[in-house]
Amino acid sequence: MKRLIISSVTLLALYMGYANTSGKEFIQHSQKEIMEKQDKKEIEKLLKAYKEVLNTSDANGAISLYTKDGVFMPSNAPSAIGSENIRGAYEFVFSQIQLNIEFYIEEIVVDHNFAYALTTSKGTTLIRATNETVPEENRELFVFEKENGDWKIARYMFNKMAPITQPEEKIAK
Amino acid sequence: MKRLIISSVTLLALYMGYANTSGKEFIQHSQKEIMEKQDKKEIEKLLKAYKEVLNTSDANGAISLYTKDGVFMPSNAPSAIGSENIRGAYEFVFSQIQLNIEFYIEEIVVDHNFAYALTTSKGTTLIRATNETVPEENRELFVFEKENGDWKIARYMFNKMAPITQPEEKIAK
Repeated sequence: MKRLIISSVTLLALYMGYANTSGKEFIQHSQKEIMEKQDKKEIEKLLKAYKEVLNTSDANGAISLYTKDGVFMPSNAPSAIGSENIRGAYEFVFSQIQLNIEFYIEEIVVDHNFAYALTTSKGTTLIRATNETVPEENRELFVFEKENGDWKIARYMFNKMAPITQPEEKIAK
Repeated sequence: MKRLIISSVTLLALYMGYANTSGKEFIQHSQKEIMEKQDKKEIEKLLKAYKEVLNTSDANGAISLYTKDGVFMPSNAPSAIGSENIRGAYEFVFSQIQLNIEFYIEEIVVDHNFAYALTTSKGTTLIRATNETVPEENRELFVFEKENGDWKIARYMFNKMAPITQPEEKIAK
């Protein structure tokens, strides 16, 4: 009888241990999902803020969205590394063109304090020198990192999806 | 006396617990560093393998280096998503050009099962249609993920650092 009681207690303890572990895992799993959703929302907000910064030619706003050692890698221009160089790069871009674009989020992937996003953007560019407005379309790859608890752009590159249009002289060849 | 012994035992237990925790933390920290070094070495090998694949026009080799849902985003071409589309994209590129390039690693950053790298590449391209060899220079942003324990390319974009050279007619304007 005593042995039976001990065995029952052991089984119960084992079961409770199991239930407790899987319960903890369930809570941890749900917490992870909730945090991931929250992270994605914050990154969506960051991308929206980035769009605003571009459409308002706001170089100071741009650097506030990057990590301190962030890297901006625009097409057909050298990499800008760190806040001061990033500011200079945006100031130069904004002195040349006025953007009016929308971002379309293809995906946001989050893992711990690290995330990335693929987006496309479409709109128009006013070329200040000629006062000409031309279509603008790009594809972007962002890498984000958390800095002091906030998601920031750590690395950012864009390029064009459309094939290079050949100048007429070349097509005529 | 009994109280003194109990207190001493408690203090000893507390100290041992503390020593054990900080020892464990030290080991965990060192392990993390060792694993990060190992991960970086594996990613360097992956980038070397990618260079070989490009220089030997090996489309099958290329897809073996990507995750199954990988995304290849070459300049002036649409995104290729997933193994079969990635194979098609590389087959098309290799049918047009023969690359002879070297990769230069600017940085590799690893966090858990997630990593990214910035590289530049330089060399020449043989344009098959004209049999002309021209200089080739790009900047790359790779995002890596672990798939079945191996580091693979998850997202990959490149663009040019050099400004667009204007066709003569435009310069003449």
